[in-house]
Amino acid sequence: MPETIPANFRDLFTKKAFANLGTLMPDGRPQVTPVWCDFDGTFVLFNTAKGRQKDRNIRRDPRVSLAIVDPDNAYRYLEVRGRVVEITEQGADADIDKLAKKYLGVDTYPHRRAGEVRLIVKVLPEHFSTMG
Amino acid sequence: MPETIPANFRDLFTKKAFANLGTLMPDGRPQVTPVWCDFDGTFVLFNTAKGRQKDRNIRRDPRVSLAIVDPDNAYRYLEVRGRVVEITEQGADADIDKLAKKYLGVDTYPHRRAGEVRLIVKVLPEHFSTMG
Repeated sequence: MPETIPANFRDLFTKKAFANLGTLMPDGRPQVTPVWCDFDGTFVLFNTAKGRQKDRNIRRDPRVSLAIVDPDNAYRYLEVRGRVVEITEQGADADIDKLAKKYLGVDTYPHRRAGEVRLIVKVLPEHFSTMG
Repeated sequence: MPETIPANFRDLFTKKAFANLGTLMPDGRPQVTPVWCDFDGTFVLFNTAKGRQKDRNIRRDPRVSLAIVDPDNAYRYLEVRGRVVEITEQGADADIDKLAKKYLGVDTYPHRRAGEVRLIVKVLPEHFSTMG
C-alpha cells in the first residue's frame, strides 16, 4: 500500500541531503549510489542519465530503497522503500537545473555531458523506517 | 573474484564516513541503512545488533553493497559490492567501542541496550565503483 512521507521527516527534502539509492543488479544483488532527491508531496523523485547502471536496474526491477541522512545530524535518517512508477525525459533538463540550485546554489547543472539524456524518476513510497 | 579497496579511496575508512549498506529483504527488494564501518586491509567491517532487519537479511542472502561518501566532499564516494563471509559475536563489544571512538570521540559506545548482542560483520569486496 502506498504511504506518505512522515511529516516530521519532510524537512530532509528541503536540505542538501543526498539519498543513497538502492537498486537491484541483473543477478538480484543490491547496488547503492548517492543521488540528489526531491519530494513533490506524493512521489520521491531523483534525476539520473539514460543508460546508467541505476537506470538499467530500475527498468528491469522497479523496487528501490532510498536512505536519506540529515546533513545536520548524521544520526537522524529516513529510509523510503518503494517502487519506480514513472521514468520520464519530460522536464528532466529543467529538473536537474532545479536540483543544481538546491544542492550547489547555481542556476545551471554544471556536469552535463554531451549527448546525455536526463531522466526524472518517480518513486511511489510504500514503507518507511526512521531514526532520530 | 575478491578485489582490494583502491588505495586512493582507503582514506575514507579513516574519516567519520558512514557506509550506506544495501541488503536484500525476504522478497528480494533492497533495504538501505547507514552504518559505521571499518576496513582491516582485506574485509570491510560493520557492526550491528543480533536480530535487526539487516542481520536477518544478510543471514538469508549475504550479498551487500556499501556506498561510502567522503564527509569532506559529497561528490567523492566509493561503492563496494561484495558478500558477507562472517558474522561473529567475538570481539564485537570491543569493536563497537572502537567505532564509537572513531565516530563520536568517546571510549564507550553510548547507545547500548540491555540484552543487545553486538555482531561484527565481515564483507569480502568483489566489485568497486568510485566517483571523484
